[in-house]
Amino acid sequence: MNYTEIIKGLERLVKIPEYHVLGKLRDNLVFFSTAQGVTNISALINTRVVRLTKEPISFPSTPKSHLDFLVFARDIERGKEKHAVYACNLKGEEYEIASPRVRIMSVAYDDKNVAFVGSSEDGTYLYVIEGGKLKKLNDVPPFSFVTDIEANHITGVSVVSPRSQDFFIADLSGELKILTPKQGSVNQPYRIKGNKVYLASDYENIGESYWIYTYDLASNTYERVDFPERDIYQYKPVEIFYDPEDKLIISKRDGRENLFLNGKLINTVPGTLTGATVIDNYIYFSHSSLVSPHKIYRVDKEGGKVDVVVDNEEHVDLGQVEYVKIQSYDKVEVPTWIIKSKAGKVPSTAVVYVHGGPWGEIDDRWNSIISSLLLFGYHVVTPNFRGSTGYGSKFYLMDIGDPGGGDLMDVVKVRDYIVGKKIAEKVGVMGYSYGGYMTLLALGREPDKWDFGMAGASVADWIEMYELSDSTFKGFIELLFNGKNLDLMKERSPITYVNNVKAPVCIIHSQNDSRTFLSPVIRYVQELHKAGKSFEFHVVPDAGHADYTVDDLINFTLPAIMFLEKLRKKWEEN
Amino acid sequence: MNYTEIIKGLERLVKIPEYHVLGKLRDNLVFFSTAQGVTNISALINTRVVRLTKEPISFPSTPKSHLDFLVFARDIERGKEKHAVYACNLKGEEYEIASPRVRIMSVAYDDKNVAFVGSSEDGTYLYVIEGGKLKKLNDVPPFSFVTDIEANHITGVSVVSPRSQDFFIADLSGELKILTPKQGSVNQPYRIKGNKVYLASDYENIGESYWIYTYDLASNTYERVDFPERDIYQYKPVEIFYDPEDKLIISKRDGRENLFLNGKLINTVPGTLTGATVIDNYIYFSHSSLVSPHKIYRVDKEGGKVDVVVDNEEHVDLGQVEYVKIQSYDKVEVPTWIIKSKAGKVPSTAVVYVHGGPWGEIDDRWNSIISSLLLFGYHVVTPNFRGSTGYGSKFYLMDIGDPGGGDLMDVVKVRDYIVGKKIAEKVGVMGYSYGGYMTLLALGREPDKWDFGMAGASVADWIEMYELSDSTFKGFIELLFNGKNLDLMKERSPITYVNNVKAPVCIIHSQNDSRTFLSPVIRYVQELHKAGKSFEFHVVPDAGHADYTVDDLINFTLPAIMFLEKLRKKWEEN
Repeated sequence: MNYTEIIKGLERLVKIPEYHVLGKLRDNLVFFSTAQGVTNISALINTRVVRLTKEPISFPSTPKSHLDFLVFARDIERGKEKHAVYACNLKGEEYEIASPRVRIMSVAYDDKNVAFVGSSEDGTYLYVIEGGKLKKLNDVPPFSFVTDIEANHITGVSVVSPRSQDFFIADLSGELKILTPKQGSVNQPYRIKGNKVYLASDYENIGESYWIYTYDLASNTYERVDFPERDIYQYKPVEIFYDPEDKLIISKRDGRENLFLNGKLINTVPGTLTGATVIDNYIYFSHSSLVSPHKIYRVDKEGGKVDVVVDNEEHVDLGQVEYVKIQSYDKVEVPTWIIKSKAGKVPSTAVVYVHGGPWGEIDDRWNSIISSLLLFGYHVVTPNFRGSTGYGSKFYLMDIGDPGGGDLMDVVKVRDYIVGKKIAEKVGVMGYSYGGYMTLLALGREPDKWDFGMAGASVADWIEMYELSDSTFKGFIELLFNGKNLDLMKERSPITYVNNVKAPVCIIHSQNDSRTFLSPVIRYVQELHKAGKSFEFHVVPDAGHADYTVDDLINFTLPAIMFLEKLRKKWEEN
Repeated sequence: MNYTEIIKGLERLVKIPEYHVLGKLRDNLVFFSTAQGVTNISALINTRVVRLTKEPISFPSTPKSHLDFLVFARDIERGKEKHAVYACNLKGEEYEIASPRVRIMSVAYDDKNVAFVGSSEDGTYLYVIEGGKLKKLNDVPPFSFVTDIEANHITGVSVVSPRSQDFFIADLSGELKILTPKQGSVNQPYRIKGNKVYLASDYENIGESYWIYTYDLASNTYERVDFPERDIYQYKPVEIFYDPEDKLIISKRDGRENLFLNGKLINTVPGTLTGATVIDNYIYFSHSSLVSPHKIYRVDKEGGKVDVVVDNEEHVDLGQVEYVKIQSYDKVEVPTWIIKSKAGKVPSTAVVYVHGGPWGEIDDRWNSIISSLLLFGYHVVTPNFRGSTGYGSKFYLMDIGDPGGGDLMDVVKVRDYIVGKKIAEKVGVMGYSYGGYMTLLALGREPDKWDFGMAGASVADWIEMYELSDSTFKGFIELLFNGKNLDLMKERSPITYVNNVKAPVCIIHSQNDSRTFLSPVIRYVQELHKAGKSFEFHVVPDAGHADYTVDDLINFTLPAIMFLEKLRKKWEEN
């Protein structure tokens, strides 16, 4: 095996940066970036890219366009997702605002205050930081996230029951209301503007499609937002993101996104838009696809001319993308990307790559893991199994009460499809987080289907994981299992099926992961070992569930690719 | 971190082959080699190197010069050291002789028979293969090894008590005698020639130095072997290897070896000789040192002119070697190599590299792990702690009944010495097998002494390891602990001190290791994790205790070097 060639290719690939437009600060474009190997906030100031943060960040807030600073969170306990809150400004200065050392999933700010939901073993609370002082405002449901604060009001999401995603309005005095336009609908508040909260909701068409509404804080009434241009009305978005300040919509359907200004379709590039904002006469947007890395473009509002403003120096030619809907055992269609590697023969080895979440999806977006596989000649197939987002709430709620059930069958059906289509001679399953869970479960419950498996940040035992979880993730597991259903948790845990595993498996896990904990995975590995199975195991130190650096990415992709290359070498020899 | 540069350097280095002259088959030089990335037997036929074996081998026998074939053992259960016995011939053909699937530590043959000691959970037995038929001849003590078979007789080593290494003589009818010229002496039989067994023994000078004797099978008497030339008499060898056919002695003192023919010192190269044989007018020998890879030379018996006959294409310039004896806590001197890396400043980071065994040593011999460390700028310091071989039996028997006691103190004293001499600003401990054990124990019992640790194939818990061991390794542990001393085993187990560990540690272990088992190490890792320590853990699949391929070496060295490079980067940033 030529190790140098493997690393050289891999290193080049994982260093390709991501860009996500966040918005603007005083007419300067602000974006999230992974350039220079770490997650950071950057700005485009007079056509020059300026990095505003130094150490890796966890996530940014949405910039307020009239201010010159931006709030963000940083993990200060080596991957444990115990966060502190910081601000950075256009001069590239950064400072700590408060260090609550709780799990924070999102943060919002205005000129005076910062708001976030923080979770620990004790519970989940809404916090505000007023003039540097941290204040616990309210108990909130375990699975809640802030999306905006403006003057006296805070808004955010609260998933109150498995089948109802409500939103909350809190004020700084401590009053909190959890609201829904209709029981069982899914609601996503974006921004507060004046007396109105802008939100997406499927309440008029539950489970099928979303539209944009306002909620009036004074009258407690909902109103549809309408647009002068009519393009958006033909598009029927399955998911929708709206920026009321710029009147920009990013609308999703079948894993690709379109951009609308005032309802008018804007000329972009096929793939996924990871953010957009209007500055002067231009719309700036970030874009990527499964086979093309992130770039930031701007498009002339009037003429529609598209330019690249932040380029990606690496040019890659990885493979050919096909989007199919594959029928599962019960006629449910599983939207799937099949990406045939340019470096691989057909048929050869395929990886069924299972996304995390389960509330997530593989859309037509750059993904370092997928592109690494393609680079080395592996075909990649990505089932958006029932439970995935991007296809309406009816589809994603199908996983409630049945994780590792119907979704696993979907993955197996997709595997059978590509074997039937003679794309794969050898086929394995791979995933991270919920995808890692599905990988281990697939190997144990459907052992004859796989030639190999690779599981990152996986779940081996839901019961131990539940015990170890903080309030937010206890809440998450209860949503997923429709309550604290220990029998189902046991039945759906990979450790229950460890003796059935047949394929060699590579397990990679970060030591400080505080979502999918390491300890049950070590137990799983001990059981694999005692049963004489063939496996690799790599524990990554001082890291957690999220990737903040290129090193974090290498820690996952390098063992995975080396594991595959060793297998391929063995197959070729026999 | 530049991963490509790291791998490139490492890959180049670990691919540098080893050569060990084994002897000759009908005047063709035969040697063990790791060229082309796997352990193999090669021959020099008409100045051309011909590889005689295909798949990796475990170990060869000593060739019989009048035959055209050679017997060897191969691990046929993915590193578990369950062996089959094969032969290869000068035409490069190989065939299986028998597949007993027991642990074999050495094998001997003549024109008709093959002999070996085989061990399993059931016991340790002397076997013979006569005309393809496997026959169990005798029970032998658990720690026994065959060294020769000739006509009706088999000889080998039997360690019957911690302080007495006897030898055995068996005949094909099943009669077995365990012999010693003197109770408490250390004896090493080499070859049977006619009615005589040639052996090294310290019985005339117990614990100090060895000489060569014959044991007469008919008269049961011992006789000194004398030589016409007198050089060897001035040399006073601490260890000695003798080939009675060629009258060649390889003699060791202070970690370097000299070659003698008929007692006359032969012109070689400073370092370690890994084998020698006489063909026509030349002595062929293999040689390496800590900073120069293996080559095979030949020296003119008369003129003393030295030529390279099998070269090593890679030329390296790694550092400067110094040999010192460092006083331990009780005045015992610890022979130690200090190798300052050419690529590292002084002071910078040093690795105290602890060898395995404990009955082994770091002599002036090429070692891929040490040279990898030097390549990346790490200084390497190698204590030959009490218990090491190469310094007489008194020294190596000091470990009996005290593993992880005085030997650990020696390692710590050597660490203090190099810190005192300002060679190291940061200092860590590293080792494989018994060296991995010492690493974990050092981190737990002397936590303030170390900035990092790297343990391969380590022992975390002697009690569980004893329970899992086969007859040979149960015997080994009983020798080491002077009986089945469970209290001492517990006191000397790293898992007892896991909560004291302070330094970050990288643990690497092969899944199928059947000497130092994985399962107690997984338990140790679970404890490290629960105590919140910083660690990496890498389990290598389908491999065991021994390295057979370059891939096996990379599996150990790559995570270790990456672990160190990440630490160094962190130190440089702070």
